[in-house]
Amino acid sequence: MGAMTNHDIQVSVLGLGEMGGALAAALVAAGHPVTVWNRSPRKADPLVARGARAAATAGDAVRAARLVIVCLLDDDSVREVLEPLADDLAGRTLVNVTTTTPAQSREMAEWADRVGAAYLDGGIMAVPPMIGRPGASVLYSGSADAFHEHRHLLDLWGSSTYFGADAGLASLYDLALLAGMYVMFAGFAHGAAMVAPAGVTAGEFAAMAAPWLTAMTGAFEGFAAVIDGGDYTVPGQQSLEFSDLTYLVAASADQGVSTEVVAMVQRLVQRQVDAGHGKEGFARIIESIRRPG
Amino acid sequence: MGAMTNHDIQVSVLGLGEMGGALAAALVAAGHPVTVWNRSPRKADPLVARGARAAATAGDAVRAARLVIVCLLDDDSVREVLEPLADDLAGRTLVNVTTTTPAQSREMAEWADRVGAAYLDGGIMAVPPMIGRPGASVLYSGSADAFHEHRHLLDLWGSSTYFGADAGLASLYDLALLAGMYVMFAGFAHGAAMVAPAGVTAGEFAAMAAPWLTAMTGAFEGFAAVIDGGDYTVPGQQSLEFSDLTYLVAASADQGVSTEVVAMVQRLVQRQVDAGHGKEGFARIIESIRRPG
Ligand SMILES: NC(=O)c1ccc[n+]([C@@H]2O[C@H](COP(=O)([O-])OP(=O)(O)OC[C@H]3O[C@@H](n4cnc5c(N)ncnc54)[C@H](OP(=O)(O)O)[C@@H]3O)[C@@H](O)[C@H]2O)c1
Ligand SMILES: NC(=O)c1ccc[n+]([C@@H]2O[C@H](COP(=O)([O-])OP(=O)(O)OC[C@H]3O[C@@H](n4cnc5c(N)ncnc54)[C@H](OP(=O)(O)O)[C@@H]3O)[C@@H](O)[C@H]2O)c1
Repeated sequence: MGAMTNHDIQVSVLGLGEMGGALAAALVAAGHPVTVWNRSPRKADPLVARGARAAATAGDAVRAARLVIVCLLDDDSVREVLEPLADDLAGRTLVNVTTTTPAQSREMAEWADRVGAAYLDGGIMAVPPMIGRPGASVLYSGSADAFHEHRHLLDLWGSSTYFGADAGLASLYDLALLAGMYVMFAGFAHGAAMVAPAGVTAGEFAAMAAPWLTAMTGAFEGFAAVIDGGDYTVPGQQSLEFSDLTYLVAASADQGVSTEVVAMVQRLVQRQVDAGHGKEGFARIIESIRRPG
Repeated sequence: MGAMTNHDIQVSVLGLGEMGGALAAALVAAGHPVTVWNRSPRKADPLVARGARAAATAGDAVRAARLVIVCLLDDDSVREVLEPLADDLAGRTLVNVTTTTPAQSREMAEWADRVGAAYLDGGIMAVPPMIGRPGASVLYSGSADAFHEHRHLLDLWGSSTYFGADAGLASLYDLALLAGMYVMFAGFAHGAAMVAPAGVTAGEFAAMAAPWLTAMTGAFEGFAAVIDGGDYTVPGQQSLEFSDLTYLVAASADQGVSTEVVAMVQRLVQRQVDAGHGKEGFARIIESIRRPG
């Protein structure tokens, strides 16, 4: 970019919902010249008040900047907005932080390639109030050049991690981490439901569960070492047999709550035990997921 | 206890498996006079080498101390060992840290009451190498007097929390926290299975998942406030409709992995949406668990 600094880069943000609005606000706050567009135009008002320029159409917004950020509802809305603008996008860089599946990200990358745009896909691991604050993380994949050229700007939103040229990788990581989160939330809800009939509030349970589960994330590294090593018989692991969840399922039923949350884990364990691997380590449950049963 | 100090208290430990051995070792290391017993007597040897006294029978061990710690495999083994010793237990304090269901803990408390023993039930939230180190936590319920009298000794194992006179409470918390842990582990395994076909190692995924899930435990408090408040319509929550897991299930299938882990969460969400609560907060999934569907 020669003598140009990041502050000279014109940026456009398409989509000013909860998340797009937060992303645009962080760019405006950092002093970038930002053009914004939203289908319902009123959502641009607070950003214009802080110094952004509102574009009347998505096409105007795209033509106003070399770097175009897109944060819409889903893949369908992205296609609906961008496809008519193929010619305008040629020569520009598109950063799509809309949540999509890996396959959708890859298709969008191919489409961008055909229209002559550089494409970077992003997955935002944060809620809108976290943008620009510690703890926010955004995952990227696709064009390495786009990532490195605009990294200082992207870092305004949170810590940025680049996974590689396959545009689907960031979405894949995003979805895999979201899956882990939703499943953990279900586990928390199950625990809170179990203790509730004994008069324990969800708040009391949360105060125990948050530090406990935080401590237990410490086990991931060990599971991963076994999984990556490919040998589930290495000594020092908790065996699948020892991880018999019958008592957890029984206690859930005793408390009058649904057993389906813990029964799901029990099935993963049981399939490995049934296949003769009961003496091997708990990490082997991943094989129950790899091979749908 | 008058002038007696904790160090004067004779303690017996029944069960010297991985966990019982670690508990006894911590007491011996702190200078307590400890009598130990294990069905297979050889497991007492390392403790005797460090200063413990080995009892030839479980009865000898019980009669040697006013405070009797029991850490056996399960409720059946505890009953098998203790029931013949009913008369010997009269007037003593029994601390049972064997993992049991809440119902089993309550039955054991009633039995102890009938034979004239004070009863404290414990749930150990640690693996054996953590005993006596930061991070280990032991949950107690049952006799408040027993807990307060022996607290200094119990604190040698880890941080001690007392939940109340209902002997089943510690087991209930224990199982609810273990349920949360196993479900989180399944979520981790699912995420690792999803990214694997893209060439991401489990270790790479663990390095992202551990801080991410740790950060996300921060959401428990907010969910709990909504659950305890009893109003799932309070503003500022992520709605059930927004928590549509279709794309997570689809992406899992695209990656060729089993969808059952995320489908479990999707069912919890869907039942609330189907019941007309789609605009309410995600915390409402607990209602899908409270009322088996
Ligand atoms: N919010 C979060 O916590 C969070 C976290 C991580 C990732 N994300 C992702 O960020 C993206 C945006 O989320 P959000 O929270 O900002 O959602 P939101 O508040 O519901 O905003 C949705 C945005 O998409 C626009 N839109 C929807 N359909 C459209 C269409 N057919 N044509 C043009 N515009 C359309 C909306 O425009 P109107 O204003 O005109 O309706 C609005 O700007 C999503 O992919 C989401 O998964 C969100
Ligand atoms: N290890 C952990 O990570 C962990 C964590 C939290 C809680 N716990 C709980 O702690 C308890 C003990 O676990 P552990 O890891 O020490 O298990 P372990 O190493 O398998 O030891 C089991 C103990 O139970 C004894 N036992 C089994 N059946 C018996 C019977 N019928 N009569 C007499 N003794 C019998 C065994 O005696 P022998 O040596 O003669 O077989 C041994 O002392 C369990 O309830 C477990 O759930 C363990």
